Amino acid sequence: MADVSETSELYELIRLIRPAHRRLARAVEAKLVGTGLSVGMRAVMEVLNDAGAKSVPDIGRKLFLARQQIQLLANDLEELELIERRPNPAHRRSPLFALTDRGYALFGEIRAREDADIALIGQRFSSAEIAAAQQVVCAMLDHFAKFEDDPNRPRGLE
Amino acid sequence: MADVSETSELYELIRLIRPAHRRLARAVEAKLVGTGLSVGMRAVMEVLNDAGAKSVPDIGRKLFLARQQIQLLANDLEELELIERRPNPAHRRSPLFALTDRGYALFGEIRAREDADIALIGQRFSSAEIAAAQQVVCAMLDHFAKFEDDPNRPRGLE
Repeated sequence: MADVSETSELYELIRLIRPAHRRLARAVEAKLVGTGLSVGMRAVMEVLNDAGAKSVPDIGRKLFLARQQIQLLANDLEELELIERRPNPAHRRSPLFALTDRGYALFGEIRAREDADIALIGQRFSSAEIAAAQQVVCAMLDHFAKFEDDPNRPRGLE
Repeated sequence: MADVSETSELYELIRLIRPAHRRLARAVEAKLVGTGLSVGMRAVMEVLNDAGAKSVPDIGRKLFLARQQIQLLANDLEELELIERRPNPAHRRSPLFALTDRGYALFGEIRAREDADIALIGQRFSSAEIAAAQQVVCAMLDHFAKFEDDPNRPRGLE
């Protein structure tokens, strides 16, 4: 067992996660004003940016969200010509979606704006401190993995 | 400015916050099964445990939740005899609420169960690593403080 002070320090960290999540989500949202994108649409674009063409069910699994929610976001992104359909060799009836050139460019601009802000926080810490923070949060994710949402019983994009 | 690798490390950490929040919230919820408490009721009890007797608006400010939401949680807790009213010298019409002996005991049991779980994560890290994680997350909270919710325009307990 960890000693009492480590447990209590870790509990204090855990208490920061809800407000951090809330403020980060609002900050992301604020940076999307004027782009026509919601936080959910941005999340779908990020999956396609990082992983290439994906089907709606694939995107849902990555984001722990229901297929139906992803489908609505994909429809909106397609209408804005930010993503486009590709044939899916594995499932003829479930097309792949990929970012269009315009989608890549817009996502890149959004990320650059976000990174400019994140860099202001990053400069206050060493690489080792940021790595330690990542490891601790990853350990919490691992430890509580069994509590992950079932994407087929969604609770919405929080 | 931070260098590019620190910014990108910090961004990777930020990406972990949403899933960490989600899993922690569900883990807290799972530990409440059988107590008759919701995550919201537990949060109100924690404020009263840490800060002593508080009015409904005070609790709302602490939790960034609307007075109306806190009032409903307080009603439920009062019905279970886990909190009780005290006269409020400052505002005759807005009583203070405090944990009853039973409330203190139940909250202590819940926290002990939670800490037994948290200790399993804590033993994997040094005190310095946990402190670094806390500092990095605190810096994000500070940096994005302007994006905190207005409790009078609530979005619900996430």
